Amino acid sequence: MTLALTALKGIPIIKPGDNLAGIILSSIQQSDLTLEDGDILVLAQKIVSKAENQFINLANIQPSPQALALSAKSGKDPRLAELILRESTEILRTRFGSVIVEHRLGFVCANAGIDHSNVAGEGTTSEDWVLLLPQDPDRSSEVLRLQLQQVSGKKLGIMIIDSHGRAWRLGTVGVAIGISGLPGLMDERGWQDLFGYTLQITVVGVADELAAAASLVMGQASEGTPVVHVRGFQYPLRNGSMKELLRPKEQDMFR
Amino acid sequence: MTLALTALKGIPIIKPGDNLAGIILSSIQQSDLTLEDGDILVLAQKIVSKAENQFINLANIQPSPQALALSAKSGKDPRLAELILRESTEILRTRFGSVIVEHRLGFVCANAGIDHSNVAGEGTTSEDWVLLLPQDPDRSSEVLRLQLQQVSGKKLGIMIIDSHGRAWRLGTVGVAIGISGLPGLMDERGWQDLFGYTLQITVVGVADELAAAASLVMGQASEGTPVVHVRGFQYPLRNGSMKELLRPKEQDMFR
Repeated sequence: MTLALTALKGIPIIKPGDNLAGIILSSIQQSDLTLEDGDILVLAQKIVSKAENQFINLANIQPSPQALALSAKSGKDPRLAELILRESTEILRTRFGSVIVEHRLGFVCANAGIDHSNVAGEGTTSEDWVLLLPQDPDRSSEVLRLQLQQVSGKKLGIMIIDSHGRAWRLGTVGVAIGISGLPGLMDERGWQDLFGYTLQITVVGVADELAAAASLVMGQASEGTPVVHVRGFQYPLRNGSMKELLRPKEQDMFR
Repeated sequence: MTLALTALKGIPIIKPGDNLAGIILSSIQQSDLTLEDGDILVLAQKIVSKAENQFINLANIQPSPQALALSAKSGKDPRLAELILRESTEILRTRFGSVIVEHRLGFVCANAGIDHSNVAGEGTTSEDWVLLLPQDPDRSSEVLRLQLQQVSGKKLGIMIIDSHGRAWRLGTVGVAIGISGLPGLMDERGWQDLFGYTLQITVVGVADELAAAASLVMGQASEGTPVVHVRGFQYPLRNGSMKELLRPKEQDMFR
């Protein structure tokens, strides 16, 4: 049993309005890959945000008094601080250089997932352009899955990932921020182990494990490989949502 | 560029004193795999702990007053609470059913990583047996790497992983608790992105990303596939340590 993750070749720089399904299908051919039942495609958040035109020009943002205060405390550009506030439901921690928030999508992340690298708006390379996360990554995944399934006739999974920091460990890791057609969690409570004991609590974050694997294959910087083809995911595909992976606030011991 | 992770076939139930290097080499042959320069082998913590005889029989443990207090608060067996205290440098949070600690090895985890499932000591299946983490997983990885390199003549990486929960997300994911011959972190600060900007801060937890990937292939319960062969890890092998991945306490905003 082999899990094989392959970065698609030939994905161009994505622009607002681009048809990701068509681009991906063409890249799969260029990469000498096929789509089979059970295959999963993992997309970097950035290309979905770009296709959905989540670009914002900071020159158009007027910081509120709250944003000015957050800027003073974090050292962030006041207009970026304004966007962080707009994209977040709660500011959890602020240190110089770092604002940890609960994003409107429900997860905890730094700087509301707003991206400054590999971002160039409408034919410019101005440093004023930033990129917000997709409006609804579960829905973006679902739409893309249905499009690719229609063309291929195969049952697929789609995942959109981003890189997040961790509370207690250094280094970012890929995590799922949008899912369609695959499980977020696998609940293995009640399964028996090798000695016949019933496992007490084992709920595995399988989508996040796959996100981390795909992130490793994408790389971070200039490699330009934002889509990864996955074959050999051993859990049955089903409807799933990124929301499965969010720890309810009342179970959060560290907020 | 494909990252391929394959669970080795035919790994038996590991007993104290077993020669993991020999067992792994034999399983690689059975699995129709080879070892090449740059390959990585990922081991589940459990088999390393078993080979190193980290079994403890709770019947031999006398709980201290502190352990009795922790037991009352957590609902854990008082003898297990005693072991959790002995294996930890700090108790961070206690809720019923869950004790979050800083382990003596430096990472934050639940119940000091003490394992009750798939554990049977010395010919018994008594529920009194538990399994501690390896004494020094970086060192265990190093010893195994040198053994396998000597036999194979190839430059390899070795990683020992466990499943950890996360502060804000549900589901466990595989993380590195011992590393030899591969990087824990890849510091991509200063690299240029597609548009020539210098990336500000991107330190990637590549070992943890690979641990998550391998965990997905191992499964959790009765599959009995505790060793995963990795080919296609795209970062150069170098000396590394699990300690690279530990966030220093003074940078921890959530403890």
